Amino acid sequence: MWTLYYAPGTCALATHIALEEAGAAYQTSRVDFAAAAQRSPAYLEINPKGRVPALVTERGTLTETPALLLFVAQSFPGAALAPLDDPMALAHLQEFNSYLCSTVHVAHAHKTRGPRWSDDAEAIESMKRRVTRNMTECSELIERQMFRGPWVMGEQFTICDPYLYTVGRWLEGDGVDESKLPLITGHRARMEARPTVRRVLAAEGTPVS
Amino acid sequence: MWTLYYAPGTCALATHIALEEAGAAYQTSRVDFAAAAQRSPAYLEINPKGRVPALVTERGTLTETPALLLFVAQSFPGAALAPLDDPMALAHLQEFNSYLCSTVHVAHAHKTRGPRWSDDAEAIESMKRRVTRNMTECSELIERQMFRGPWVMGEQFTICDPYLYTVGRWLEGDGVDESKLPLITGHRARMEARPTVRRVLAAEGTPVS
Repeated sequence: MWTLYYAPGTCALATHIALEEAGAAYQTSRVDFAAAAQRSPAYLEINPKGRVPALVTERGTLTETPALLLFVAQSFPGAALAPLDDPMALAHLQEFNSYLCSTVHVAHAHKTRGPRWSDDAEAIESMKRRVTRNMTECSELIERQMFRGPWVMGEQFTICDPYLYTVGRWLEGDGVDESKLPLITGHRARMEARPTVRRVLAAEGTPVS
Repeated sequence: MWTLYYAPGTCALATHIALEEAGAAYQTSRVDFAAAAQRSPAYLEINPKGRVPALVTERGTLTETPALLLFVAQSFPGAALAPLDDPMALAHLQEFNSYLCSTVHVAHAHKTRGPRWSDDAEAIESMKRRVTRNMTECSELIERQMFRGPWVMGEQFTICDPYLYTVGRWLEGDGVDESKLPLITGHRARMEARPTVRRVLAAEGTPVS
Protein backbone atom coordinates (compact mmCIF):
# COMPACT_ATOMS: atom_id res chain seq x y z
CA MET A 1 0.00 0.00 0.00
CA TRP A 2 1.22 3.48 -0.81
CA THR A 3 2.02 5.91 2.02
CA LEU A 4 1.61 9.66 1.61
CA TYR A 5 3.76 11.80 3.90
CA TYR A 6 2.04 15.13 4.47
CA ALA A 7 1.65 18.07 6.82
CA PRO A 8 -1.55 20.09 7.20
CA GLY A 9 -1.56 23.44 5.42
CA THR A 10 1.01 22.36 2.84
CA CYS A 11 0.74 21.56 -0.84
CA ALA A 12 0.59 17.86 0.07
CA LEU A 13 -3.17 18.41 0.31
CA ALA A 14 -3.38 18.38 -3.50
CA THR A 15 -1.95 14.88 -3.79
CA HIS A 16 -4.03 13.70 -0.83
CA ILE A 17 -7.24 14.79 -2.58
CA ALA A 18 -6.09 13.28 -5.89
CA LEU A 19 -5.47 9.91 -4.22
CA GLU A 20 -8.96 10.02 -2.71
CA GLU A 21 -10.53 11.02 -6.04
CA ALA A 22 -8.70 8.15 -7.76
CA GLY A 23 -9.94 5.62 -5.25
CA ALA A 24 -6.35 4.59 -4.52
CA ALA A 25 -5.43 2.27 -1.67
CA TYR A 26 -3.17 4.43 0.49
CA GLN A 27 -2.38 5.39 4.03
CA THR A 28 -1.01 8.67 5.33
CA SER A 29 1.77 9.62 7.70
CA ARG A 30 1.77 13.08 9.24
CA VAL A 31 5.13 14.88 9.39
CA ASP A 32 5.27 17.16 12.44
CA PHE A 33 6.56 20.45 11.06
CA ALA A 34 6.28 22.09 14.52
CA ALA A 35 8.94 19.66 15.70
CA ALA A 36 10.94 20.12 12.45
CA ALA A 37 10.42 16.42 11.78
CA GLN A 38 10.85 17.08 8.05
CA ARG A 39 14.56 17.60 8.77
CA SER A 40 14.99 14.58 11.03
CA PRO A 41 17.41 11.89 9.83
CA ALA A 42 14.53 9.40 9.62
CA TYR A 43 12.52 11.62 7.29
CA LEU A 44 15.52 12.68 5.23
CA GLU A 45 15.99 8.98 4.48
CA ILE A 46 12.54 9.08 2.89
CA ASN A 47 12.89 12.46 1.18
CA PRO A 48 16.36 14.06 1.12
CA LYS A 49 14.76 17.39 0.21
CA GLY A 50 13.20 17.59 3.68
CA ARG A 51 9.79 18.57 2.37
CA VAL A 52 6.33 17.16 1.79
CA PRO A 53 4.64 15.59 -0.05
CA ALA A 54 6.44 12.30 -0.50
CA LEU A 55 4.70 9.17 -1.71
CA VAL A 56 6.30 5.84 -0.84
CA THR A 57 5.31 3.09 -3.25
CA GLU A 58 6.39 -0.48 -3.92
CA ARG A 59 8.56 0.91 -6.76
CA GLY A 60 10.22 3.69 -4.78
CA THR A 61 9.52 7.16 -3.45
CA LEU A 62 8.14 10.08 -5.42
CA THR A 63 8.16 13.80 -4.65
CA GLU A 64 7.09 17.07 -6.33
CA THR A 65 3.39 17.82 -6.60
CA PRO A 66 3.04 18.04 -10.42
CA ALA A 67 4.80 14.68 -10.76
CA LEU A 68 2.67 13.07 -8.07
CA LEU A 69 -0.56 14.39 -9.54
CA LEU A 70 0.16 13.03 -13.01
CA PHE A 71 1.34 9.76 -11.47
CA VAL A 72 -1.98 9.33 -9.68
CA ALA A 73 -3.91 10.20 -12.85
CA GLN A 74 -1.89 7.78 -14.98
CA SER A 75 -2.04 4.99 -12.38
CA PHE A 76 -5.85 5.20 -12.20
CA PRO A 77 -6.98 5.94 -15.76
CA GLY A 78 -10.53 4.93 -14.87
CA ALA A 79 -10.84 8.01 -12.66
CA ALA A 80 -10.29 10.21 -15.74
CA LEU A 81 -8.27 12.81 -13.84
CA ALA A 82 -6.21 13.93 -16.87
CA PRO A 83 -6.54 13.88 -20.71
CA LEU A 84 -3.68 11.40 -20.96
CA ASP A 85 -3.96 10.73 -24.69
CA ASP A 86 -4.31 14.31 -25.93
CA PRO A 87 -0.85 15.95 -25.94
CA MET A 88 -2.15 19.52 -26.21
CA ALA A 89 -4.83 19.11 -23.53
CA LEU A 90 -2.34 17.39 -21.24
CA ALA A 91 0.17 20.16 -21.90
CA HIS A 92 -2.35 22.80 -20.83
CA LEU A 93 -2.95 20.84 -17.64
CA GLN A 94 0.78 20.56 -17.02
CA GLU A 95 1.24 24.25 -17.83
CA PHE A 96 -1.25 25.16 -15.12
CA ASN A 97 0.32 22.89 -12.50
CA SER A 98 3.81 24.05 -13.41
CA TYR A 99 2.74 27.68 -12.96
CA LEU A 100 1.37 26.84 -9.51
CA CYS A 101 4.56 25.11 -8.38
CA SER A 102 7.20 27.38 -9.88
CA THR A 103 5.56 30.80 -9.57
CA VAL A 104 2.53 30.83 -7.25
CA HIS A 105 3.82 28.50 -4.55
CA VAL A 106 7.18 30.29 -4.68
CA ALA A 107 5.47 33.69 -4.28
CA HIS A 108 3.63 32.34 -1.23
CA ALA A 109 6.77 30.78 0.24
CA HIS A 110 8.42 34.19 0.55
CA LYS A 111 6.10 34.84 3.50
CA THR A 112 7.41 32.09 5.77
CA ARG A 113 10.37 30.57 3.96
CA GLY A 114 12.42 33.71 3.32
CA PRO A 115 15.48 32.17 5.04
CA ARG A 116 15.80 29.94 1.99
CA TRP A 117 16.86 32.94 -0.07
CA SER A 118 18.50 35.36 2.37
CA ASP A 119 20.38 35.30 5.67
CA ASP A 120 19.38 38.87 6.48
CA ALA A 121 16.44 39.51 8.82
CA GLU A 122 15.48 42.79 7.19
CA ALA A 123 15.55 41.25 3.74
CA ILE A 124 13.27 38.47 4.96
CA GLU A 125 10.82 41.06 6.30
CA SER A 126 11.03 42.90 3.00
CA MET A 127 10.08 39.72 1.11
CA LYS A 128 7.04 39.26 3.35
CA ARG A 129 5.79 42.70 2.37
CA ARG A 130 5.60 41.69 -1.30
CA VAL A 131 3.56 38.53 -0.78
CA THR A 132 0.11 40.13 -0.97
CA ARG A 133 0.93 41.94 -4.20
CA ASN A 134 2.53 38.90 -5.84
CA MET A 135 -0.22 36.50 -4.81
CA THR A 136 -2.84 38.99 -6.01
CA GLU A 137 -1.15 39.25 -9.41
CA CYS A 138 -0.90 35.46 -9.73
CA SER A 139 -4.54 35.00 -8.72
CA GLU A 140 -5.71 37.62 -11.18
CA LEU A 141 -3.80 35.91 -13.99
CA ILE A 142 -5.44 32.59 -13.11
CA GLU A 143 -8.86 34.22 -12.85
CA ARG A 144 -8.53 36.22 -16.07
CA GLN A 145 -6.53 33.93 -18.35
CA MET A 146 -6.34 30.35 -17.15
CA PHE A 147 -9.49 29.25 -15.34
CA ARG A 148 -12.08 27.82 -17.74
CA GLY A 149 -14.89 26.75 -15.42
CA PRO A 150 -16.65 25.12 -13.81
CA TRP A 151 -13.38 23.25 -13.23
CA VAL A 152 -9.91 24.57 -13.98
CA MET A 153 -9.67 22.85 -17.37
CA GLY A 154 -13.37 23.16 -18.23
CA GLU A 155 -16.13 20.61 -17.94
CA GLN A 156 -13.83 17.82 -16.78
CA PHE A 157 -12.57 17.63 -13.20
CA THR A 158 -8.79 17.04 -13.36
CA ILE A 159 -5.67 17.00 -11.18
CA CYS A 160 -5.50 20.78 -11.60
CA ASP A 161 -8.50 21.16 -9.33
CA PRO A 162 -7.07 19.81 -6.07
CA TYR A 163 -3.93 21.86 -6.72
CA LEU A 164 -5.75 25.15 -7.30
CA TYR A 165 -7.92 24.43 -4.27
CA THR A 166 -4.81 23.87 -2.13
CA VAL A 167 -3.08 27.05 -3.24
CA GLY A 168 -6.32 29.03 -3.09
CA ARG A 169 -6.67 28.21 0.61
CA TRP A 170 -3.53 30.31 1.20
CA LEU A 171 -4.89 33.50 -0.36
CA GLU A 172 -6.79 34.93 2.61
CA GLY A 173 -3.79 34.48 4.90
CA ASP A 174 -1.60 36.09 2.27
CA GLY A 175 -3.75 39.23 2.39
CA VAL A 176 -5.35 38.81 -1.04
CA ASP A 177 -8.74 40.48 -1.54
CA GLU A 178 -10.77 37.44 -2.55
CA SER A 179 -13.90 39.45 -3.28
CA LYS A 180 -12.32 40.21 -6.66
CA LEU A 181 -11.79 36.52 -7.44
CA PRO A 182 -15.27 35.08 -7.98
CA LEU A 183 -14.07 32.21 -10.16
CA ILE A 184 -11.44 31.00 -7.69
CA THR A 185 -13.74 31.34 -4.67
CA GLY A 186 -16.62 29.69 -6.53
CA HIS A 187 -14.31 26.84 -7.44
CA ARG A 188 -13.35 26.46 -3.78
CA ALA A 189 -16.98 26.13 -2.77
CA ARG A 190 -17.53 23.47 -5.45
CA MET A 191 -14.48 21.60 -4.22
CA GLU A 192 -15.71 21.67 -0.63
CA ALA A 193 -19.03 20.22 -1.72
CA ARG A 194 -17.25 17.04 -2.89
CA PRO A 195 -17.32 14.16 -0.40
CA THR A 196 -13.71 13.29 -1.34
CA VAL A 197 -12.48 16.72 -0.31
CA ARG A 198 -14.45 16.65 2.93
CA ARG A 199 -13.04 13.24 3.81
CA VAL A 200 -9.48 14.42 3.19
CA LEU A 201 -9.90 17.63 5.21
CA ALA A 202 -11.32 15.59 8.10
CA ALA A 203 -8.43 13.12 7.88
CA GLU A 204 -5.90 15.98 7.99
CA GLY A 205 -7.79 17.67 10.85
CA THR A 206 -8.11 20.77 8.67
CA PRO A 207 -11.23 22.96 8.60
CA VAL A 208 -13.07 23.85 5.43
CA SER A 209 -12.00 27.32 4.34
CA MET B 1 4.52 25.35 -38.27
CA TRP B 2 5.21 25.86 -34.58
CA THR B 3 7.08 28.97 -33.43
CA LEU B 4 9.29 28.93 -30.34
CA TYR B 5 9.78 32.31 -28.67
CA TYR B 6 13.10 32.32 -26.83
CA ALA B 7 15.94 34.47 -25.54
CA PRO B 8 19.56 33.31 -25.31
CA GLY B 9 20.70 32.32 -21.83
CA THR B 10 17.20 31.46 -20.63
CA CYS B 11 15.50 28.15 -19.89
CA ALA B 12 13.93 28.30 -23.38
CA LEU B 13 17.09 26.49 -24.51
CA ALA B 14 15.74 23.25 -23.06
CA THR B 15 12.64 23.30 -25.26
CA HIS B 16 14.69 24.42 -28.25
CA ILE B 17 16.95 21.37 -27.92
CA ALA B 18 13.97 19.06 -27.35
CA LEU B 19 12.34 20.30 -30.56
CA GLU B 20 15.55 19.63 -32.46
CA GLU B 21 15.93 16.17 -30.90
CA ALA B 22 12.34 15.35 -31.83
CA GLY B 23 12.83 16.36 -35.44
CA ALA B 24 9.93 18.79 -35.15
CA ALA B 25 9.10 21.31 -37.86
CA TYR B 26 9.48 24.64 -36.08
CA GLN B 27 10.81 28.12 -36.42
CA THR B 28 12.14 30.42 -33.71
CA SER B 29 11.55 34.04 -32.80
CA ARG B 30 14.04 35.78 -30.59
CA VAL B 31 12.64 38.03 -27.85
CA ASP B 32 14.98 40.95 -27.17
CA PHE B 33 15.31 41.00 -23.38
CA ALA B 34 17.78 43.92 -23.56
CA ALA B 35 14.94 46.02 -24.98
CA ALA B 36 12.45 44.49 -22.49
CA ALA B 37 10.53 43.12 -25.46
CA GLN B 38 9.10 40.39 -23.23
CA ARG B 39 6.94 43.09 -21.64
CA SER B 40 5.86 44.75 -24.87
CA PRO B 41 2.13 44.72 -25.64
CA ALA B 42 2.80 42.59 -28.72
CA TYR B 43 4.58 39.88 -26.74
CA LEU B 44 2.13 40.00 -23.84
CA GLU B 45 -0.54 39.12 -26.40
CA ILE B 46 1.43 35.91 -27.03
CA ASN B 47 2.37 35.19 -23.40
CA PRO B 48 0.66 37.28 -20.70
CA LYS B 49 3.31 36.14 -18.21
CA GLY B 50 5.94 38.17 -20.07
CA ARG B 51 8.46 35.36 -20.10
CA VAL B 52 10.01 32.78 -22.39
CA PRO B 53 9.67 30.09 -23.60
CA ALA B 54 6.35 30.25 -25.41
CA LEU B 55 5.42 27.84 -28.19
CA VAL B 56 2.78 28.95 -30.64
CA THR B 57 1.02 26.03 -32.30
CA GLU B 58 -2.00 25.57 -34.54
CA ARG B 59 -3.94 24.62 -31.38
CA GLY B 60 -2.87 27.56 -29.24
CA THR B 61 0.09 28.77 -27.21
CA LEU B 62 1.93 26.81 -24.54
CA THR B 63 4.27 27.99 -21.80
CA GLU B 64 6.19 26.50 -18.84
CA THR B 65 9.22 24.34 -19.57
CA PRO B 66 8.10 21.04 -17.98
CA ALA B 67 4.80 21.23 -19.90
CA LEU B 68 6.56 22.05 -23.16
CA LEU B 69 9.08 19.26 -22.76
CA LEU B 70 6.43 16.60 -22.17
CA PHE B 71 4.37 18.04 -25.02
CA VAL B 72 7.28 17.63 -27.41
CA ALA B 73 7.94 14.09 -26.19
CA GLN B 74 4.27 13.10 -26.50
CA SER B 75 3.87 14.74 -29.91
CA PHE B 76 6.85 12.83 -31.33
CA PRO B 77 6.70 9.38 -29.72
CA GLY B 78 9.11 8.02 -32.31
CA ALA B 79 11.90 10.12 -30.80
CA ALA B 80 11.49 8.20 -27.51
CA LEU B 81 12.19 11.26 -25.35
CA ALA B 82 10.09 10.05 -22.37
CA PRO B 83 8.79 6.72 -20.97
CA LEU B 84 5.22 7.71 -21.79
CA ASP B 85 3.59 4.39 -20.92
CA ASP B 86 5.31 3.69 -17.60
CA PRO B 87 3.67 5.83 -14.88
CA MET B 88 6.48 5.41 -12.35
CA ALA B 89 9.29 6.08 -14.84
CA LEU B 90 7.42 9.08 -16.21
CA ALA B 91 6.83 10.32 -12.66
CA HIS B 92 10.55 10.21 -11.92
CA LEU B 93 11.18 12.20 -15.08
CA GLN B 94 8.53 14.73 -14.08
CA GLU B 95 9.90 14.85 -10.53
CA PHE B 96 13.29 15.85 -11.88
CA ASN B 97 11.94 18.53 -14.20
CA SER B 98 9.65 19.86 -11.50
CA TYR B 99 12.60 20.18 -9.12
CA LEU B 100 14.52 22.14 -11.75
CA CYS B 101 11.66 24.57 -12.38
CA SER B 102 10.38 25.11 -8.85
CA THR B 103 13.59 24.96 -6.81
CA VAL B 104 16.75 25.21 -8.93
CA HIS B 105 15.58 27.80 -11.44
CA VAL B 106 14.05 29.80 -8.59
CA ALA B 107 17.34 29.69 -6.64
CA HIS B 108 19.15 30.98 -9.73
CA ALA B 109 16.56 33.69 -10.37
CA HIS B 110 17.34 35.35 -7.05
CA LYS B 111 20.57 36.59 -8.63
CA THR B 112 19.01 38.78 -11.31
CA ARG B 113 15.25 38.70 -10.64
CA GLY B 114 15.23 39.76 -6.99
CA PRO B 115 12.81 42.63 -7.75
CA ARG B 116 10.14 39.97 -8.23
CA TRP B 117 10.20 39.30 -4.49
CA SER B 118 11.28 42.57 -2.85
CA ASP B 119 11.18 46.30 -3.51
CA ASP B 120 14.18 46.94 -1.29
CA ALA B 121 17.63 47.35 -2.89
CA GLU B 122 19.50 45.96 0.10
CA ALA B 123 17.24 42.93 0.27
CA ILE B 124 17.86 42.28 -3.41
CA GLU B 125 21.62 42.40 -2.80
CA SER B 126 21.18 40.07 0.15
CA MET B 127 19.38 37.53 -2.06
CA LYS B 128 22.25 37.64 -4.57
CA ARG B 129 24.67 36.65 -1.83
CA ARG B 130 22.82 33.38 -1.22
CA VAL B 131 22.78 32.23 -4.85
CA THR B 132 26.12 30.41 -4.81
CA ARG B 133 25.24 28.44 -1.69
CA ASN B 134 21.75 27.53 -2.88
CA MET B 135 22.85 26.53 -6.36
CA THR B 136 25.67 24.47 -4.86
CA GLU B 137 23.22 22.63 -2.59
CA CYS B 138 20.84 21.96 -5.47
CA SER B 139 23.66 20.73 -7.69
CA GLU B 140 25.00 18.43 -5.00
CA LEU B 141 21.54 16.92 -4.51
CA ILE B 142 21.27 16.27 -8.25
CA GLU B 143 24.79 14.84 -8.36
CA ARG B 144 24.36 12.65 -5.27
CA GLN B 145 20.72 11.55 -5.44
CA MET B 146 19.10 12.13 -8.80
CA PHE B 147 21.53 11.73 -11.69
CA ARG B 148 21.69 8.11 -12.91
CA GLY B 149 24.10 8.34 -15.85
CA PRO B 150 25.13 8.45 -18.54
CA TRP B 151 21.92 10.45 -19.02
CA VAL B 152 19.80 11.94 -16.27
CA MET B 153 17.34 9.02 -16.20
CA GLY B 154 19.89 6.34 -17.06
CA GLU B 155 20.64 4.68 -20.37
CA GLN B 156 17.87 6.49 -22.23
CA PHE B 157 18.24 10.11 -23.35
CA THR B 158 15.08 11.97 -22.26
CA ILE B 159 13.63 15.45 -21.97
CA CYS B 160 15.40 15.76 -18.60
CA ASP B 161 18.73 16.03 -20.42
CA PRO B 162 18.22 19.31 -22.29
CA TYR B 163 16.77 20.80 -19.10
CA LEU B 164 19.70 19.79 -16.87
CA TYR B 165 22.09 20.99 -19.56
CA THR B 166 20.34 24.37 -19.67
CA VAL B 167 20.38 24.88 -15.91
CA GLY B 168 23.92 23.51 -15.63
CA ARG B 169 25.18 26.24 -17.95
CA TRP B 170 24.27 28.75 -15.22
CA LEU B 171 26.41 27.18 -12.49
CA GLU B 172 29.75 28.78 -13.29
CA GLY B 173 28.23 32.26 -13.40
CA ASP B 174 26.46 31.53 -10.14
CA GLY B 175 29.80 30.90 -8.47
CA VAL B 176 29.38 27.15 -8.03
CA ASP B 177 32.60 25.11 -7.79
CA GLU B 178 32.03 22.73 -10.68
CA SER B 179 35.15 20.69 -9.96
CA LYS B 180 33.06 18.88 -7.34
CA LEU B 181 30.34 18.01 -9.86
CA PRO B 182 31.90 15.44 -12.20
CA LEU B 183 28.57 13.89 -13.18
CA ILE B 184 26.95 17.19 -14.15
CA THR B 185 30.01 18.46 -16.01
CA GLY B 186 30.50 15.11 -17.75
CA HIS B 187 26.86 15.22 -18.82
CA ARG B 188 27.39 18.70 -20.23
CA ALA B 189 30.28 17.49 -22.35
CA ARG B 190 28.17 14.60 -23.67
CA MET B 191 25.38 17.03 -24.50
CA GLU B 192 27.75 19.31 -26.40
CA ALA B 193 28.95 16.38 -28.47
CA ARG B 194 25.44 15.94 -29.89
CA PRO B 195 24.88 17.53 -33.31
CA THR B 196 21.39 18.61 -32.21
CA VAL B 197 22.77 20.64 -29.33
CA ARG B 198 25.46 22.21 -31.49
CA ARG B 199 22.89 23.22 -34.09
CA VAL B 200 20.69 24.84 -31.45
CA LEU B 201 23.56 26.72 -29.82
CA ALA B 202 24.62 28.02 -33.23
CA ALA B 203 21.05 29.08 -34.03
CA GLU B 204 20.81 30.98 -30.74
CA GLY B 205 24.25 32.53 -31.25
CA THR B 206 25.33 31.01 -27.94
CA PRO B 207 28.82 29.55 -27.35
CA VAL B 208 29.40 26.05 -26.04
CA SER B 209 30.08 26.25 -22.32
